[in-house]
Amino acid sequence: MHITILGGGGFLGRKLAQRLAADGALGGRAITGMTLFDLAEPAPVPASFTVRTLAGDLGDAAALTAAIPDDTGAIFHLAAVVSAAAEADYDLGIRVNLLGTLAVVNRCRELVVAPRVVFPSSVASFGGGQDARVRDDERQVPTNSYGAQKAMAELALNDASRRGFLDAVCIRLPTVVVRPGRPNKAASSFASAILREPLLGLATDCPVFPDFRLWICSPRSAVAWFLHAATMDTAPLGLERGVNPPGMTASVAEMLDALESVAGAEARRLVHIVPDTVVQDIVRGWPSGFVPDRALALGFAGHEPLADVVRAFMGDDLAATKADRGLA
Amino acid sequence: MHITILGGGGFLGRKLAQRLAADGALGGRAITGMTLFDLAEPAPVPASFTVRTLAGDLGDAAALTAAIPDDTGAIFHLAAVVSAAAEADYDLGIRVNLLGTLAVVNRCRELVVAPRVVFPSSVASFGGGQDARVRDDERQVPTNSYGAQKAMAELALNDASRRGFLDAVCIRLPTVVVRPGRPNKAASSFASAILREPLLGLATDCPVFPDFRLWICSPRSAVAWFLHAATMDTAPLGLERGVNPPGMTASVAEMLDALESVAGAEARRLVHIVPDTVVQDIVRGWPSGFVPDRALALGFAGHEPLADVVRAFMGDDLAATKADRGLA
Repeated sequence: MHITILGGGGFLGRKLAQRLAADGALGGRAITGMTLFDLAEPAPVPASFTVRTLAGDLGDAAALTAAIPDDTGAIFHLAAVVSAAAEADYDLGIRVNLLGTLAVVNRCRELVVAPRVVFPSSVASFGGGQDARVRDDERQVPTNSYGAQKAMAELALNDASRRGFLDAVCIRLPTVVVRPGRPNKAASSFASAILREPLLGLATDCPVFPDFRLWICSPRSAVAWFLHAATMDTAPLGLERGVNPPGMTASVAEMLDALESVAGAEARRLVHIVPDTVVQDIVRGWPSGFVPDRALALGFAGHEPLADVVRAFMGDDLAATKADRGLA
Repeated sequence: MHITILGGGGFLGRKLAQRLAADGALGGRAITGMTLFDLAEPAPVPASFTVRTLAGDLGDAAALTAAIPDDTGAIFHLAAVVSAAAEADYDLGIRVNLLGTLAVVNRCRELVVAPRVVFPSSVASFGGGQDARVRDDERQVPTNSYGAQKAMAELALNDASRRGFLDAVCIRLPTVVVRPGRPNKAASSFASAILREPLLGLATDCPVFPDFRLWICSPRSAVAWFLHAATMDTAPLGLERGVNPPGMTASVAEMLDALESVAGAEARRLVHIVPDTVVQDIVRGWPSGFVPDRALALGFAGHEPLADVVRAFMGDDLAATKADRGLA
């Protein structure tokens, strides 16, 4: 079976590729080849099977045909314009997040066997705010273009699954913590920065108060959910291919407690609460809690404790992040 | 103010155009011109203001620019590929129902003042079946491509409204009864045929049992809701521009009772129950009831009784339908 990762050069795409390379199989079927596709050619990943790395645009049908060969059994469609970028450039968000997904659907229609498609949708496709406890049957009323485009893509994948073009599972990912890299303009940047920066020995400002709660997941849980979505029986999903996975609610204070428990009080002292009403106005619309009963019943693994999230970042990403940022 | 009706050659578009021509104003503002746009050039509608009739495709940007002049204050976007056609031709449904709506959004972005956009979404964007009582906060889980495309278009219009590109109200129309014309391949064809055909003196087969329930509305109610949507204060809608209007639940037996009360027992005897499991398999997924609290609070008028629906068809459409079909 061939596997394609669209957005294979990104942070989660790369972790997923490394995991698939290590496993050599998916759901008991041997992996015979893998394609990593992204706007810029992804770095190679060593594996016992052939790994192709391709640069291209989702909107280019020829590039997509090359990225998804005829024997593709599973596609991880992680290519996306993220929230701040989709809000800043409406056309770009529509083109990649919506029309790009329709292009993936069209390529799947050409395959003889409908492939499994794993698609990360987002917590940003819901509203609700700090007091939300989002149920499985709740409406998606997005507060931003990224969330709207993700919800539209889910509808397209639901319908394409019903028609037999493909066999999709959409996972509405929480805010992923800890992201490697640098602080950026994303409103959620602080959620990773308050753990990552102190572990790099750097001070950081937190724009929200310590009691602010977020719905988060670790990169390890995200990858584990992707793999479960790629191999699970999809019959119980019926027409609704979207799943609210079992992330966790964490307050800023709880995240800092976990940081202190792993890295000491001096790490925690590097985080300074500096309220920023611009950031607060955006993030307070996001739901801080879900009741993920359906995902648990479908076999998605529950989340590990916060301290493990901190330790996993230290083990998996800290050294590479230091190197990328030119830190000692 | 200029008004544009996309799909202005259709059954509801034409009724709306005639009503606007009669009123001469919308929400207290004088209508200075109207454009009726459809694939085939719509028939002219006499009015005290200029009425342009244009043929074109929603996907043709130049045609859409011509159809929506710079001084357009309200757009009724009724152009659509209907349910059976969107199911039979996936690409056509995507092109018109989804990409056509995105093209309307893009044209609206070019206008100096964000126009009101009234968009009929559909009961087909919900599942639920015979026992459903759809709440205002219920998820749309479509069972067909038409419903999926309508739900996606709603999300696009919600987001475009939030961004200030336009100011949308989406009305999730029930099955419209009585449609003029002829029986067709639509699974819902019987809902109008069991009233229309006997009033034309013709026999008709009903594929479902008398206790089968439908969520319906009359053409008069649909047009009244369009006009309310075009003139209402949209601030109370917030991010959710979709409304479940106050249609009515009617069983086949209740519809035949209304027919008999207006047109006599001989009319009713022209309807024969001839169960068709193919039709039953499709229509039993549609929700037969809603709890339209939000629409009523927003000022959408409640529905008239079934006997009035029958009488309105006789007054508004029976003569023209007879003439169209070459009946005496």
